[in-house]
Amino acid sequence: RSRSDDQVAIRVDLVEFTPPLTEFLGRAAYVQLMLFENLSRALSTAPSTAAKAAIGPAVELAISKHRALADEITRAGGSIATAMDPYTAEVDLFERSTQGADWYETLMTCYLTAGFLDDLFARLGAGLPAESSARIVAIYHSGTAEPMLGQQLQSAIEANPRLASRLAMWGRRLVGDTLLLARASLTWGENHRSDEERAEPVFTELIAAHTRRMDRLGLTA
Amino acid sequence: RSRSDDQVAIRVDLVEFTPPLTEFLGRAAYVQLMLFENLSRALSTAPSTAAKAAIGPAVELAISKHRALADEITRAGGSIATAMDPYTAEVDLFERSTQGADWYETLMTCYLTAGFLDDLFARLGAGLPAESSARIVAIYHSGTAEPMLGQQLQSAIEANPRLASRLAMWGRRLVGDTLLLARASLTWGENHRSDEERAEPVFTELIAAHTRRMDRLGLTA
Repeated sequence: RSRSDDQVAIRVDLVEFTPPLTEFLGRAAYVQLMLFENLSRALSTAPSTAAKAAIGPAVELAISKHRALADEITRAGGSIATAMDPYTAEVDLFERSTQGADWYETLMTCYLTAGFLDDLFARLGAGLPAESSARIVAIYHSGTAEPMLGQQLQSAIEANPRLASRLAMWGRRLVGDTLLLARASLTWGENHRSDEERAEPVFTELIAAHTRRMDRLGLTA
Repeated sequence: RSRSDDQVAIRVDLVEFTPPLTEFLGRAAYVQLMLFENLSRALSTAPSTAAKAAIGPAVELAISKHRALADEITRAGGSIATAMDPYTAEVDLFERSTQGADWYETLMTCYLTAGFLDDLFARLGAGLPAESSARIVAIYHSGTAEPMLGQQLQSAIEANPRLASRLAMWGRRLVGDTLLLARASLTWGENHRSDEERAEPVFTELIAAHTRRMDRLGLTA
């Protein structure tokens, strides 16, 4: 069997942990806005015009995903700001703690967190009511900037090999913060312990994907 | 005659001052990237989720205009970064000097400069070679975030009338910086004095439009 068969075979779903539509969309839209803010900061502070030009499409993709999620809030009869408001504190805290000390760390944050959170919300989205689920999951499959961001980071590391250990450390720190945000995005039942056991394989998969992202840069997770 | 007839009647063109295609596109794409950076900073630093949500579509429009201009560079056989590079110094200087001291001033910069520069580049774009001119001018007519940004500023001034005099002063300062950038975007001939005379009516119109933008906020230009 090919490796991708294995990945499909072990794919565990999160649908029993999916929050109600309004909660899902409010958090998802605000998380996506935060991902956009990180990318736009990476663009603004990029050290070269070439890096700015390369990050442009990633920024456009991020804001268009946010708009698609915001449109879903409107379609469900909600107000975009009211739906997002309950989640600003937890997401702003994540944004601050993952900001990074310089452009390279910011870019690393963008590279590592976008795919992780896309994957998480796509899995949770599969548990939404049938009339909106497929449309919302499709937003998360509408494209990824990961290869392009990874390429920028690889070039940076090649040009300055001393970056590698710093970015490896930063990547290890990011996974902790991202897991916290991911856990807060699930609706937990009353039997927390058995919920944890059932959710664990998903977090294992999300962490494995994180490790592959680090591998691609030649870094140890 | 209606007011809009008058406006059409006095419209002066700038086609004799249009730079060669590559120069035009390089500067225009980098200016548009700067306008995006200002808007994304306004979004990131917005004082409320409602303001963030309102600015989202403006940000998306700005980055999509940039991408359309970048695509034109590629179509003309150029490299996006190489085309933009000669203009980074003058545009970065403009960005720094028009950044503003807080969110309200940043938003004012976005509101006042985007329409001004769209108008300038649409007029210059009319002088480009026929095979690309209409397509490039259409990018500048693809939408405007001005009414929405103006509404945010009006609400802010209503909520805090003391903002009015500060923003009026900021608006008066911005017009000077924006005119400098506009002048640098024209290709001047050898007879600078007669060029100045012929371009003057255009700058008069651009300033009149600036005055109307200030009027709409109840501010004196």
